[in-house]
Amino acid sequence: MSGSTVGVGVIGCGTVGAALCQLVAEHGDTIAARSGITLEIVRVAVSDVSRRRPVTFAEGVLTDDADALVSDSDVEVVVEVMGGIEPARRLIRAALEAGKPVVTANKEVLANAGAELVEAAAKSRVDLLYEAAVAGAIPLIRPLRESLAGDRLLRVMGIVNGTTNFILTRMGESGQSFDEALADAQSLGYAERDPSADVDGVDAAAKAAIIASVAFGVQVVASDVYREGITHVTGEDIAMAARLGYVVKLLAIVEAVGERPAEPGEPNLGPPGPGEVAVRVHPAMVPVDHPLASVRDSFNAVFVEGAAAGELMFYGRGAGGRPTASAVLGDLVDAAVNLHQGTSAGPAGLARARIRPIDELSSQYYLTIDVVDRPGVLEKVAGATARHGVSILKMEQVGLGDEARLVLVTHTAAERDVQATIADLRLLDEVDRVGTLLRVVGSG
Amino acid sequence: MSGSTVGVGVIGCGTVGAALCQLVAEHGDTIAARSGITLEIVRVAVSDVSRRRPVTFAEGVLTDDADALVSDSDVEVVVEVMGGIEPARRLIRAALEAGKPVVTANKEVLANAGAELVEAAAKSRVDLLYEAAVAGAIPLIRPLRESLAGDRLLRVMGIVNGTTNFILTRMGESGQSFDEALADAQSLGYAERDPSADVDGVDAAAKAAIIASVAFGVQVVASDVYREGITHVTGEDIAMAARLGYVVKLLAIVEAVGERPAEPGEPNLGPPGPGEVAVRVHPAMVPVDHPLASVRDSFNAVFVEGAAAGELMFYGRGAGGRPTASAVLGDLVDAAVNLHQGTSAGPAGLARARIRPIDELSSQYYLTIDVVDRPGVLEKVAGATARHGVSILKMEQVGLGDEARLVLVTHTAAERDVQATIADLRLLDEVDRVGTLLRVVGSG
Repeated sequence: MSGSTVGVGVIGCGTVGAALCQLVAEHGDTIAARSGITLEIVRVAVSDVSRRRPVTFAEGVLTDDADALVSDSDVEVVVEVMGGIEPARRLIRAALEAGKPVVTANKEVLANAGAELVEAAAKSRVDLLYEAAVAGAIPLIRPLRESLAGDRLLRVMGIVNGTTNFILTRMGESGQSFDEALADAQSLGYAERDPSADVDGVDAAAKAAIIASVAFGVQVVASDVYREGITHVTGEDIAMAARLGYVVKLLAIVEAVGERPAEPGEPNLGPPGPGEVAVRVHPAMVPVDHPLASVRDSFNAVFVEGAAAGELMFYGRGAGGRPTASAVLGDLVDAAVNLHQGTSAGPAGLARARIRPIDELSSQYYLTIDVVDRPGVLEKVAGATARHGVSILKMEQVGLGDEARLVLVTHTAAERDVQATIADLRLLDEVDRVGTLLRVVGSG
Repeated sequence: MSGSTVGVGVIGCGTVGAALCQLVAEHGDTIAARSGITLEIVRVAVSDVSRRRPVTFAEGVLTDDADALVSDSDVEVVVEVMGGIEPARRLIRAALEAGKPVVTANKEVLANAGAELVEAAAKSRVDLLYEAAVAGAIPLIRPLRESLAGDRLLRVMGIVNGTTNFILTRMGESGQSFDEALADAQSLGYAERDPSADVDGVDAAAKAAIIASVAFGVQVVASDVYREGITHVTGEDIAMAARLGYVVKLLAIVEAVGERPAEPGEPNLGPPGPGEVAVRVHPAMVPVDHPLASVRDSFNAVFVEGAAAGELMFYGRGAGGRPTASAVLGDLVDAAVNLHQGTSAGPAGLARARIRPIDELSSQYYLTIDVVDRPGVLEKVAGATARHGVSILKMEQVGLGDEARLVLVTHTAAERDVQATIADLRLLDEVDRVGTLLRVVGSG
């Protein structure tokens, strides 16, 4: 491989963009020695050219015209680290259509317009790489796509949001309330002033859609993802989970669930196709001896189950300027080498996924029910669960003044039956409130 | 990418080879749909063609002539899963020189003749891929080489031998002795009848050499690796480590240690070069809250520290037919796609590493000393450590009849000084025996 210079255009110069420019300056020589490619950042598009930045650029590099950057003939590879859906979608698409490989760290645009972009890349036969979009510095997309290319993936479960993992770790280990832990996360810079994208699971759901697309080779979008956040999880739930041998984690779970069996009377779904996938984000109880249970603070980890590879886990920093920039740079080297060799990692166009709704999944469940403390209550509650075929593994009563709280853990049951049980419970005079529902995963 | 068939020759059909053939049969269609490449296993070389195997082959596929397989014009890619140094080295080399990409799972040949093979691959501009050689199913080599291409790696620490991890887990959790745990490992098929390659750290040292070569882009061979096994680690050491907040793990550690400062009077080493690397395998005390501490039983994990990426960990099955075969197959797809596109991952020729000997490293140490239980002993021991500038963080005395055992944990000290201290301690009348020396890693 002879030495060659590749011109890079970077859209966005926030934390990640600035860190990327610094890494290229620091490690450019090593990269050139190993890959034969010298990366030259020729244009950086920002919204305000006059703002002070931690990196200085040569005259003419900074521009406020991202469209011009994309069409600039000196720009051979485009890095998009501005975030958001528009104008990122338009710019990435324009670059791909102009035959320029794109590296992005933008989960929103991938989870909402990923299929369109993947198709544009395939049509132009150029790379669209996004290792940094899902779990920051953790190599995940490349292992899923390449190392496990000869395996059949069964399930991927990830702690992919550092903010919520930090909050849940604090609630579990220091006994902080949700609000206290959130305030700490904000003061440490882990959480935004408006934390809803994190605590409501929106960020994790976007990542789940991307993971599902890569793991199963189908098109999954953010709105396909069943989503619950962590705001309803209480300190008591976490303490009770610990007593039962579990930790509570916000998980993004993508599963190959095969063909849905036809219900009686339902039309036959036709010949077996590529199978369905279930994609969901919710707080879950994970057994303490599961590898995901020991992932603490703002760390991320993704647990992968392959038919042949068995259980794998990838752990590391899911956010932060330099960690994320290091993943972007790995992709950038790859894209530049492929461009130079005239090849591409060649993502194929993806068929739309067939999504199995959460209703049709099964799990063990943890459920709290606040009841009036009088004889016969247990019988009523047990009757409601039995009526829907939900079988109880464990039941405990915790006193609360003249009220009582029942804590149930079920055997594996259908989500639909558990939801029907909860609806019935709400109608009982003896039940004041149905509290937290948590799904148990990763056991057995 | 248009559909294309690639002829594969497999050398060796033991557990991994047979599992590979099965995986290709099971997932060949999916691989073809995703990559455009149909893998066809056209030749399989074995030592005894008549032996019964779990896979059946078409007439003419099985052969006992591996040399003929390599030169067969139908074989476009060679997979070597026979193990051992010869004739594997000769066969791999012949394949590479004939312009055929090679995928291997063979750590011995890579750790002993890796540089020669890497050079032959570079000269022929074909792939030499070996993801399965280091940690079975765990994607490690590809992430190190590609995802972290833009980062500077500081250190890699791995639990890369499942047998010893199983034994140490049993000794720590079930209170089994080394011999009992080894016997269980043997009866479960984790350990060979002759366990020395595992328990003496030979297997881990070969993997350490390969990891160091990939992580730092230099040539490191098995004999460069400082090596201690686990046979001298006792149940008492593990119990004491637990009381102090540590678990004992056999670690393969590769570190970039920069330039060695010139000693007074020593000739100047010249201008700063690419720096030195330290490569070692020994039992180590790991803090319980370190991610490596929770890697139990026969699982493997590799902990990576990058300047930008921060801390990463890769976890999974380090051995077993199907897990290892899944890694081989990932490489095989990669090699076949590259061959079809006329490119290669292009490993460059490697310069010989400059190895920093263990003498010149520093660490915290755990040391047990059996002493006569009489006044003045502590003073003598403390005197010996002080004389060599080794400072004690913690000292505890454990009674043993009319003897006593001292357990020391030092502050960070130079290996050379600790070894000199031990030599002095051995000369003291009050010291009956200097017991286990364990290095503490991963704290602070």
